[in-house]
Amino acid sequence: MPLVRIAVMEGKPAAHRAAIADAVHRAMVETLNVPAKDRFQIIGEHGKGDLVYDPSYLDIPRTDGLVVVQITLNAGRTVEMKKAFYARAAALVQEAAGVRPEDLLVSLVEVSKENWSFGNGIAQYA
Amino acid sequence: MPLVRIAVMEGKPAAHRAAIADAVHRAMVETLNVPAKDRFQIIGEHGKGDLVYDPSYLDIPRTDGLVVVQITLNAGRTVEMKKAFYARAAALVQEAAGVRPEDLLVSLVEVSKENWSFGNGIAQYA
Amino acid sequence: MPLVRIAVMEGKPAAHRAAIADAVHRAMVETLNVPAKDRFQIIGEHGKGDLVYDPSYLDIPRTDGLVVVQITLNAGRTVEMKKAFYARAAALVQEAAGVRPEDLLVSLVEVSKENWSFGNGIAQYA
Repeated sequence: MPLVRIAVMEGKPAAHRAAIADAVHRAMVETLNVPAKDRFQIIGEHGKGDLVYDPSYLDIPRTDGLVVVQITLNAGRTVEMKKAFYARAAALVQEAAGVRPEDLLVSLVEVSKENWSFGNGIAQYA
Repeated sequence: MPLVRIAVMEGKPAAHRAAIADAVHRAMVETLNVPAKDRFQIIGEHGKGDLVYDPSYLDIPRTDGLVVVQITLNAGRTVEMKKAFYARAAALVQEAAGVRPEDLLVSLVEVSKENWSFGNGIAQYA
Repeated sequence: MPLVRIAVMEGKPAAHRAAIADAVHRAMVETLNVPAKDRFQIIGEHGKGDLVYDPSYLDIPRTDGLVVVQITLNAGRTVEMKKAFYARAAALVQEAAGVRPEDLLVSLVEVSKENWSFGNGIAQYA
């Protein structure tokens, strides 16, 4: 059920974006009880001026390799599960795509289970 | 008050996207008590690798004709209203734009009524 | 912690978008207790048909100069703080970028503090 939006700076090859998307999904499967086939992602490239970030907020040094991941998902994951996801995602995007852990920003938006239709006009989770 | 984000694969004519947007709005008016003039939509086209979907999750066969609709709206609609919306939206996008019902994915994000300003720096609903 | 998405019609210079983004951030700092360095914004340009708005909903006359700002932020701001933000943002985008107050639409999405990782795979606010 999650819907994942990924934003990166433009100019990297498509394979780079694909590796990031694969890694984020794998981390979700491993830590958030997301089914392997439950994968829906929208990836966007942005020009330098259109992906604005602070290079040192919270004393974390960020670069143009920044990856912003916003995930809409059902409420109910524990804080521990969320922490495990952040850690695993950071490890996997580094391993798979060379993204620095400092450059991965994650935002979760939680919704109710009746807030989804995955096709055929039906609320599959309600 | 809803803010609607629609994502489709690139390469379709603008008229196709417009027909989808019209259909989604009409379904919202008919089933979710949205005023006809309360229409704000952002439509995005994405390359093949940048709109990632599972072709069979929940045994629903999806194609590149996928349409992802994410709607931010005030909390308070009942489950029955949401179900009516999913069904009506699937019927209307098929009728108006030839989108297969299997290819319509909907995500709702609910917020409080004081979370909107529709212009002039005022919280019109608070 | 906020993640800000800004949508404008395409065709304006990058400096216009930058001025809008600066103004929105400054309004957040002044009214929502957002640290000055806590700035993360994604700006998108959209073709005429892909940024759909009603030109008079709630008797507010809107133009193609429309700016749609959606902010994901931690829950907990009061209604008065949100109202102060809407007013200040409208004033500053007008002053800095010539955006008509009628053309600023704001949507807030509130989340829990454990729903963020700002880098290094850690939930900095949890």
